[in-house]
Amino acid sequence: MPYVNIKITREGATPEQKARLIKGVSDLLYDVLGKDPALTFVVIDEVALEDWGVGGLPVEEHRRRRAGG
Amino acid sequence: MPYVNIKITREGATPEQKARLIKGVSDLLYDVLGKDPALTFVVIDEVALEDWGVGGLPVEEHRRRRAGG
Amino acid sequence: MPYVNIKITREGATPEQKARLIKGVSDLLYDVLGKDPALTFVVIDEVALEDWGVGGLPVEEHRRRRAGG
Amino acid sequence: MPYVNIKITREGATPEQKARLIKGVSDLLYDVLGKDPALTFVVIDEVALEDWGVGGLPVEEHRRRRAGG
Amino acid sequence: MPYVNIKITREGATPEQKARLIKGVSDLLYDVLGKDPALTFVVIDEVALEDWGVGGLPVEEHRRRRAGG
Amino acid sequence: MPYVNIKITREGATPEQKARLIKGVSDLLYDVLGKDPALTFVVIDEVALEDWGVGGLPVEEHRRRRAGG
Repeated sequence: MPYVNIKITREGATPEQKARLIKGVSDLLYDVLGKDPALTFVVIDEVALEDWGVGGLPVEEHRRRRAGG
Repeated sequence: MPYVNIKITREGATPEQKARLIKGVSDLLYDVLGKDPALTFVVIDEVALEDWGVGGLPVEEHRRRRAGG
Repeated sequence: MPYVNIKITREGATPEQKARLIKGVSDLLYDVLGKDPALTFVVIDEVALEDWGVGGLPVEEHRRRRAGG
Repeated sequence: MPYVNIKITREGATPEQKARLIKGVSDLLYDVLGKDPALTFVVIDEVALEDWGVGGLPVEEHRRRRAGG
Repeated sequence: MPYVNIKITREGATPEQKARLIKGVSDLLYDVLGKDPALTFVVIDEVALEDWGVGGLPVEEHRRRRAGG
Repeated sequence: MPYVNIKITREGATPEQKARLIKGVSDLLYDVLGKDPALTFVVIDEVALEDWGVGGLPVEEHRRRRAGG
């Protein structure tokens, strides 16, 4: 009975893409470990860009610097 | 000093119901383990239906199929 | 289909006590929100004392200072 | 830069199986959302059977009852 | 490659304050453990007051009682 | 009343280093947001190397490839 939490930045993932994530993760746990999808929970969290940091910076600022000269 | 995280689908839980969850969990940790409620944190997350999967499907689709013929 | 994560310090909770936590939380979610226990997951994490901090201190040091003169 | 947490019961998953989960989830996030695997973290938690509950029971007891007459 | 999740009550933290949290935590992990900030993720969750409990009460009610006579 | 969860790979962090993380995070939340350290919880999780993935690989394999020719 796995529980999977997927955190992504909030940038327009559609319900269809989320459904693909849910199906893909459930299939993966069945294929690798034989876990029954009926008892696999998947929870997706979309995180606002200002709430996600990497490289010591909010993600937008981080991208700007990587893209910049 | 327990920390409890409760994730439920977002389907209209009221502030009163949330207060009952907070009280109930805090009481339970006191009754079973003697934990001081003053140091018990409870955080409730309401998750949009499209962000919760079970049985390899978003929860609404999952319910539809179970209800269906 | 709730998911509940309970974090407590590792201080000798028994399997029987954990079973009471699992039952208590599942009952609570049924009583307050009508959630089917068959789809309620509870995961308990026991955290070593050195890995839990409060008041800016590891929990054992924190307790010592509160108990101390 | 997704972060994925996979919780499974501790029942002998091998390092090879874990590597397949890590690769599978990273590929999935790339395929569905174009996420760069270099910035996808996957953390697997194995949870002792006595620490996982479903149906209001620790998972072993839950399985016993489902299997039983 | 640390992952840090900071949960705070939703009470008006600004993007600038969040950026300071992200930088501060990343610096701390570098200073204490030598962790490369490029591989340190920080995710901030703001939690509505009605969704956070302490002392067996939603946080607003808890504050009111502590402040009250 | 913040709650902070720090996940790091299990590679020998000492109790002293963990105490510095706990103090540093609690100080940071006080400095930036005025949060009372008495109500700041910090939980540190050390994750086995085989349970942490990045770049689609378990972290040790990932490091080997980055270091390798």
